[in-house]
Amino acid sequence: MAQGKVYIVGAGPGDPDLLTLKAKRVLGEADVVLYDRLLNPVMLDGVNAELIDVGKSAGSHNLTQEDINRLLIQKAEEGKTIVRLKGGDPYVFGRGGEEALALIDKGIPFELVPGVTSAIAAPGLAGIPVTHRGISSSLTIVTGHEEPGKESPLDWNALARLSGTLIVLMGISRLEQNILALIEGGKSSETPAALVEKGGWPEQRLVTGKLGDIAEVARQAEIQAPAILVVGDVVKLSVRLAKKKIAILRPDSQLEESAKLAEDYGFKPICAPSIRIKERQLPADLMQRILDADCVAFTSANGVNLALKNEIVRQSLINKIVVSIGPKTGFALHSFGLIPELPDEYSSAPWEDIRSLYSLRQSRRNWIY
Amino acid sequence: MAQGKVYIVGAGPGDPDLLTLKAKRVLGEADVVLYDRLLNPVMLDGVNAELIDVGKSAGSHNLTQEDINRLLIQKAEEGKTIVRLKGGDPYVFGRGGEEALALIDKGIPFELVPGVTSAIAAPGLAGIPVTHRGISSSLTIVTGHEEPGKESPLDWNALARLSGTLIVLMGISRLEQNILALIEGGKSSETPAALVEKGGWPEQRLVTGKLGDIAEVARQAEIQAPAILVVGDVVKLSVRLAKKKIAILRPDSQLEESAKLAEDYGFKPICAPSIRIKERQLPADLMQRILDADCVAFTSANGVNLALKNEIVRQSLINKIVVSIGPKTGFALHSFGLIPELPDEYSSAPWEDIRSLYSLRQSRRNWIY
Repeated sequence: MAQGKVYIVGAGPGDPDLLTLKAKRVLGEADVVLYDRLLNPVMLDGVNAELIDVGKSAGSHNLTQEDINRLLIQKAEEGKTIVRLKGGDPYVFGRGGEEALALIDKGIPFELVPGVTSAIAAPGLAGIPVTHRGISSSLTIVTGHEEPGKESPLDWNALARLSGTLIVLMGISRLEQNILALIEGGKSSETPAALVEKGGWPEQRLVTGKLGDIAEVARQAEIQAPAILVVGDVVKLSVRLAKKKIAILRPDSQLEESAKLAEDYGFKPICAPSIRIKERQLPADLMQRILDADCVAFTSANGVNLALKNEIVRQSLINKIVVSIGPKTGFALHSFGLIPELPDEYSSAPWEDIRSLYSLRQSRRNWIY
Repeated sequence: MAQGKVYIVGAGPGDPDLLTLKAKRVLGEADVVLYDRLLNPVMLDGVNAELIDVGKSAGSHNLTQEDINRLLIQKAEEGKTIVRLKGGDPYVFGRGGEEALALIDKGIPFELVPGVTSAIAAPGLAGIPVTHRGISSSLTIVTGHEEPGKESPLDWNALARLSGTLIVLMGISRLEQNILALIEGGKSSETPAALVEKGGWPEQRLVTGKLGDIAEVARQAEIQAPAILVVGDVVKLSVRLAKKKIAILRPDSQLEESAKLAEDYGFKPICAPSIRIKERQLPADLMQRILDADCVAFTSANGVNLALKNEIVRQSLINKIVVSIGPKTGFALHSFGLIPELPDEYSSAPWEDIRSLYSLRQSRRNWIY
């Protein structure tokens, strides 16, 4: 019988770019991928394998852990190469150890591929370094969602006594109860606290406050699971380290270019296309105004492309001085065979200023734009 | 002036395969890479950038943190794209936050690229899941190397009270003092403990014991920095989860094939080439023995390649029955134009057994091998 093998793989916090090289490679070699619900599906684009959503997420399981173990064993005994893909790192509250033990009991080879844990990356990407010299010299990670009746419940008193950073995964689950336990354990309600929603995903959100009010802040901001609670003085650094957001309102077709530019300058672009270029009837008196003008100035490539579709407009520009406010409008004019005048400095400032940039200013000719 | 940019990048625990896709990509775009001493240099193979070793490691700095900050700022102000490459994750005792703040103060864009933290991956790869249902529901990460006279020294008493897993980075530094502090804080000296040396590197080693004896175990095994101390019941899982090691003694040229096979079967190959194929004078009576034989059997491809380099040996095999113990030896014979007999089952068992596999057995002819 062929030898099956299971890779137990951490997928990182959500951004497909934070997969490891090894995770990417074994996904390419897999016959079967068993993945959890919270994974970014983009990670599986182009993966040529049987894809099985085993739907593990807090509180609702498509398959029980025992079902998953059985499925792994069954597929491996068929000689398949299997990737078991889990969010974050498989050994940080991922039950990777349980699956590994089940495989070992059956003599099935497995290999761990550690991943970037969301517990550390999500706060980091939101501007909160989990440790920082002079501020926090320890980091504790727990999960907020405890099974009822668990044998060894978390000792929130002991957690409250630690002065370092506390990270609570599945932080929205039981948020009020856990905060109350920390405060009753002696943690000051003034301790800085934050919630990172969907850390590592494009739609990541951060809200900050104090231990005493973060639950209310989260409610008002309608923070949803998955979210990570961060408690400790490092939260204060987010004021300086969190990326400033910049809203990009340009039309869909021009969003990507601007988003890239915003990223290069250290901003987080929020793409909110709010402008649509729509073709309208040209003004009735436009032809007469062009015929009367000595110069015709164009203020955008969109304007050039729409106006010059009209053959009559194109004809009317022959022997006029055509002016462009910048290189892109100029390129659009070039594409219609027109050679525009260009200013020494580009600007989309108000037209009275623009006109002053042109050497044509003193010509006192009639302008149209 | 061109806009510089700094990527603050986590390189993971040592295995270049555990770089993230994003880390790999930005290394490809970088003009300058500033990297720490403990990084695996293989990660920088093929990186076409100015490479600067800033030599940060416990206790000895080539450059001070202030020097590194200044260098980052200077290169960024020259318009360069810079990768600041750090072991593990930049925000887990990596001083990534300090560098980020220095850049922000100068208005230089930076981007965090989180990495796989050694604190979690190194124990995991050594067979210790840092959390495990029913065994450990919290994970605390500290560093064993504290600066003397630090404002907020670690509260080992509070750490001792936590029932979950404790990870001490730079665990060899101050090992005895830190263990004593834990025991004095109330942690049982019977608590399972382990040290992972060079976690994530090919030469990774694991030693296990109890809190009360792990320092002595480490001394006897001559465990060196960098090493991570793990304290907690999860250490016991390593008995089952740590990969069994298999020593591969084959010659250099054949190691890789066997190591791959060992990995496929879930072992950790320890490559220790202890066999060298050396050409020796053929025995003086060999030719006469071949001439007397009806069958000549070859037991290895190496034997075929060495013996058949000799033209006289090749000539003497004409009209003999040539036998191979297996397919690889057979391929080698084929390459010299000989068509060997092959057994129904392959084996490198003692020759009396091998002979019995051959249908030629009853022929009572003379054999040579």
